[in-house]
Amino acid sequence: MTDYSLPHGIYPYLVSPIDSSGRVDEALIEKLVNDLIEAGVDGITPLGSTGEVMYISPAQRRAIVSATVRATAGRVPVVPGMTAFSTFDAVDQAKELEQLGANGLVVMRQNAFPVTEKGTISYFGDVARAVSLPIVLYTNPALLGSDFTTESLMALSDLPNIRYIKDATSDTGRILSLTNRFGAKLEVFSASAHIPAFVFLLGGVGWMAGPACVIPQAAAELYRRVKSGDIASAMELQRPLWAINECFRRYPLAACIKTALQLRGYDVGDPIPPQGPLDGKARDEIAAALAAADRAIGR
Amino acid sequence: MTDYSLPHGIYPYLVSPIDSSGRVDEALIEKLVNDLIEAGVDGITPLGSTGEVMYISPAQRRAIVSATVRATAGRVPVVPGMTAFSTFDAVDQAKELEQLGANGLVVMRQNAFPVTEKGTISYFGDVARAVSLPIVLYTNPALLGSDFTTESLMALSDLPNIRYIKDATSDTGRILSLTNRFGAKLEVFSASAHIPAFVFLLGGVGWMAGPACVIPQAAAELYRRVKSGDIASAMELQRPLWAINECFRRYPLAACIKTALQLRGYDVGDPIPPQGPLDGKARDEIAAALAAADRAIGR
Amino acid sequence: MTDYSLPHGIYPYLVSPIDSSGRVDEALIEKLVNDLIEAGVDGITPLGSTGEVMYISPAQRRAIVSATVRATAGRVPVVPGMTAFSTFDAVDQAKELEQLGANGLVVMRQNAFPVTEKGTISYFGDVARAVSLPIVLYTNPALLGSDFTTESLMALSDLPNIRYIKDATSDTGRILSLTNRFGAKLEVFSASAHIPAFVFLLGGVGWMAGPACVIPQAAAELYRRVKSGDIASAMELQRPLWAINECFRRYPLAACIKTALQLRGYDVGDPIPPQGPLDGKARDEIAAALAAADRAIGR
Amino acid sequence: MTDYSLPHGIYPYLVSPIDSSGRVDEALIEKLVNDLIEAGVDGITPLGSTGEVMYISPAQRRAIVSATVRATAGRVPVVPGMTAFSTFDAVDQAKELEQLGANGLVVMRQNAFPVTEKGTISYFGDVARAVSLPIVLYTNPALLGSDFTTESLMALSDLPNIRYIKDATSDTGRILSLTNRFGAKLEVFSASAHIPAFVFLLGGVGWMAGPACVIPQAAAELYRRVKSGDIASAMELQRPLWAINECFRRYPLAACIKTALQLRGYDVGDPIPPQGPLDGKARDEIAAALAAADRAIGR
Repeated sequence: MTDYSLPHGIYPYLVSPIDSSGRVDEALIEKLVNDLIEAGVDGITPLGSTGEVMYISPAQRRAIVSATVRATAGRVPVVPGMTAFSTFDAVDQAKELEQLGANGLVVMRQNAFPVTEKGTISYFGDVARAVSLPIVLYTNPALLGSDFTTESLMALSDLPNIRYIKDATSDTGRILSLTNRFGAKLEVFSASAHIPAFVFLLGGVGWMAGPACVIPQAAAELYRRVKSGDIASAMELQRPLWAINECFRRYPLAACIKTALQLRGYDVGDPIPPQGPLDGKARDEIAAALAAADRAIGR
Repeated sequence: MTDYSLPHGIYPYLVSPIDSSGRVDEALIEKLVNDLIEAGVDGITPLGSTGEVMYISPAQRRAIVSATVRATAGRVPVVPGMTAFSTFDAVDQAKELEQLGANGLVVMRQNAFPVTEKGTISYFGDVARAVSLPIVLYTNPALLGSDFTTESLMALSDLPNIRYIKDATSDTGRILSLTNRFGAKLEVFSASAHIPAFVFLLGGVGWMAGPACVIPQAAAELYRRVKSGDIASAMELQRPLWAINECFRRYPLAACIKTALQLRGYDVGDPIPPQGPLDGKARDEIAAALAAADRAIGR
Repeated sequence: MTDYSLPHGIYPYLVSPIDSSGRVDEALIEKLVNDLIEAGVDGITPLGSTGEVMYISPAQRRAIVSATVRATAGRVPVVPGMTAFSTFDAVDQAKELEQLGANGLVVMRQNAFPVTEKGTISYFGDVARAVSLPIVLYTNPALLGSDFTTESLMALSDLPNIRYIKDATSDTGRILSLTNRFGAKLEVFSASAHIPAFVFLLGGVGWMAGPACVIPQAAAELYRRVKSGDIASAMELQRPLWAINECFRRYPLAACIKTALQLRGYDVGDPIPPQGPLDGKARDEIAAALAAADRAIGR
Repeated sequence: MTDYSLPHGIYPYLVSPIDSSGRVDEALIEKLVNDLIEAGVDGITPLGSTGEVMYISPAQRRAIVSATVRATAGRVPVVPGMTAFSTFDAVDQAKELEQLGANGLVVMRQNAFPVTEKGTISYFGDVARAVSLPIVLYTNPALLGSDFTTESLMALSDLPNIRYIKDATSDTGRILSLTNRFGAKLEVFSASAHIPAFVFLLGGVGWMAGPACVIPQAAAELYRRVKSGDIASAMELQRPLWAINECFRRYPLAACIKTALQLRGYDVGDPIPPQGPLDGKARDEIAAALAAADRAIGR
């Protein structure tokens, strides 16, 4: 029987560096991926929400995933995000991502018109059946306008490769409801709106999010401390790290990660239009949050 | 100076007939377009929200617009809808639609992350500058999660080809605010959530919506009565016609139009998955509304 | 059988003039009521939302209603608003208002926890059965957080004295759904968020709202023109009058009416704290809207 | 200088036992308070949201607080909740509660019309200045429709007796933002929508909520374990206890606590109309959650 598990730990949401003519900067992806792996991350997730998955073209999608797969060279898994309105499109994208070398998928759905529970089960189930990869379900009602019912999660978690869920609400109690009910059958990754130390403490198996792309060492250290059981020391680190999450909660995601990486010295460009860059005040807050995170791990 | 005006009147939102393998039924589009023109409509809008514009692939988009252009054969203008997250994609789509023979565009925007007023002006302005076609701005905050400010409409209506707006809220007072402020500079098309007779009475120049695809004669007659000044007789027709709008407000748009056209004898198939078809109760309500509309114009 | 009908027409929502020590200015109420009746209004509604019904004490409520009853002296009906969280409180208030001389009631409900349809029917039904007065149901989901289902309206309209509904959404289509379904069994009063001429045209029996307190002649004239069937001339008046509704839609209701009445020369004081007065820009907009309304009726 | 601190720990939100004629059951309050104190709670909060504070009359309010003060007899502090629309009413209530023997106040605000930051600071500040009691600010945007800005909390926490805040969102990250920014200057009590163990771990000083009224021993034990630093054992208890919070999140608060206390053998009656009692399925879920909580502490 196929093993559909992913390594636990830190999965940075990768930035999508695209210039004003629409060109993907593959060299930057290579450098950033190398730096992240060196910093101790456990996997890479291109094309999450922070990676502007909704805003890129099919050609840009292929370029970004291929560059990421080449850069990781098998050292850590590549688990791209994907999203679609129609089931047709979702299934096609999933197959293509598998062929491009993805090691798992974070599956979202765009919503225009209401979809029934049956429709939800068919969309995510059809994607899962189309590939031989571990699937991370993604839910973010505020961003996407839909959510899973408990019944739909029960049906979907019966599929062998639907193994994980990323809950991108800010409601930490939902995580405890999930871990109490599903245990190892559907494991949870933290999003940035949660306090990641708490998701780990509830049995969460990692953190898939934008902040891990800009403070990868600190994120890895936080995960290590919680899993080693040293909660007091984990909380001591979590408190100052929260400032970076506050930035990602306050500002548009893509603008936030691109500003933070520019401050880290990566020339990632601006968010894809009509999104715009952040102003100076936001830039200063992000710089302060990065400095606080660095100090917290003695860098 | 180029004339960027569109004929006033009834623009049915065209259904997108796509079978379970993803094939577009071009013969059905031809027959439906012929029937609509014969019924007296003034233009055709494929790929509106009701036409599942978010759910179709680029290839399906091309097939539907081409088939519509062929079928109309210049008798009435073809004014397709289009939507995108990124400005890049929107501009590319607009150019392609112009090349395919569109006579105008209804321009929407999908929203994931917050966009500033400046971003809104650049998105719709870049689309307008990319083509030589009349532009209908589209706003539907409940469906799309964003809206125009008065300032952004003032800036956009200064462009020569941004001539119309379709307001798809249910707040009729917004229409009066628009016509009071903009007059002929930015004319208004009614959406189905409004009482169309009232939008016409406020100076609205037509009705672009799904119901006009299933009750085209009645829609054209309603428009004619208001514009001829016979308000009492218009209201006598508007009252029973409202039942079809109630259906479009109550049920998912694509499921509603596909059910109604099936009842009219067109084999348009089901909504694109993961959307599903309506149940029997909804079908009965739609059938009753169609019958009431037919009776109201003596058919 | 008792006649539970109210005269049709214009019912200004009366301001609540309360000074910073909490004292009700009864002389001002007397003067304002006289001026409104002279201007041609058909009834007076103290303690609507615009009348800050939620913010006043039981003693202030009694003072305002008594003063209004005294001032009208039977010339027009007094139809106060009332609101409560509990059914107990609502029934007690209704009885007290009847004893104070009210000729009808506009009944609202505050909402904290979810109430079932059965609970809604019992609340409004218990109030109606507690008095021998015409009842106007009031719905404003955005302000109060609840709404009536069609089923609850059907049950409630079976009671002999539940005769009217004031729909304070901005969705004019709801009015047509109501008049189509209920006809004379549950007649509709317009709120300020609607275009009142359209509500009248749909069969609405009047306008109960704040604007009618500041432009009473124009409101009465608008009603007269629609009901006489001269729609073109009604729309000619409605267009400029809409500016005052725009103010009531844009600014907090109590601050808006108090500013407008101060500009009209009535010393009504500020909204009850923690509400605050409007700033200069809002004051200028309201002054311009009043001037436009006066010009429109040649004052 | 006066000490405005409250003992840390567990403050059950007290049920409001009111029969169908509106009578407060003071004997039941006495028995329940004795049982709660015996179970180890650190204070009692009558008239919280769960205590139906919006639904009771002034006379019922006085009866409930007086009975609670008599029953506690100084053994633990009585910290009632209070809410109002107007600042006048809030100040009057606060003074009356102090005279009735309250040892602190949980201060809420009802919202109808928008209030500025200045208005918010004046409302809560005026209440604080009217009494010599510790003040717990309460925020629950989903229930009450308003929230504190950081600036308003900074201004209010400068007052000597505004010492605490109860954050009744489900967003645990907000708590960390508060404790990082305010530290001992504005300490945090947990609400039921949070995982209380996590609020304690973030430095929260207690749990003020309905569940503590039905599982007081378990709540006290949970608080003790976290504060003793034994996080593993605290989480072992927190996991099964979460089921009772899930009930309070799923069902209307007053109906939930009344059902749970009936199951515990207290004849507390039904929620105040138009609220209604829960159905059998909800009752079974609550019974199961209570049983799980009892097992978790070996009862």
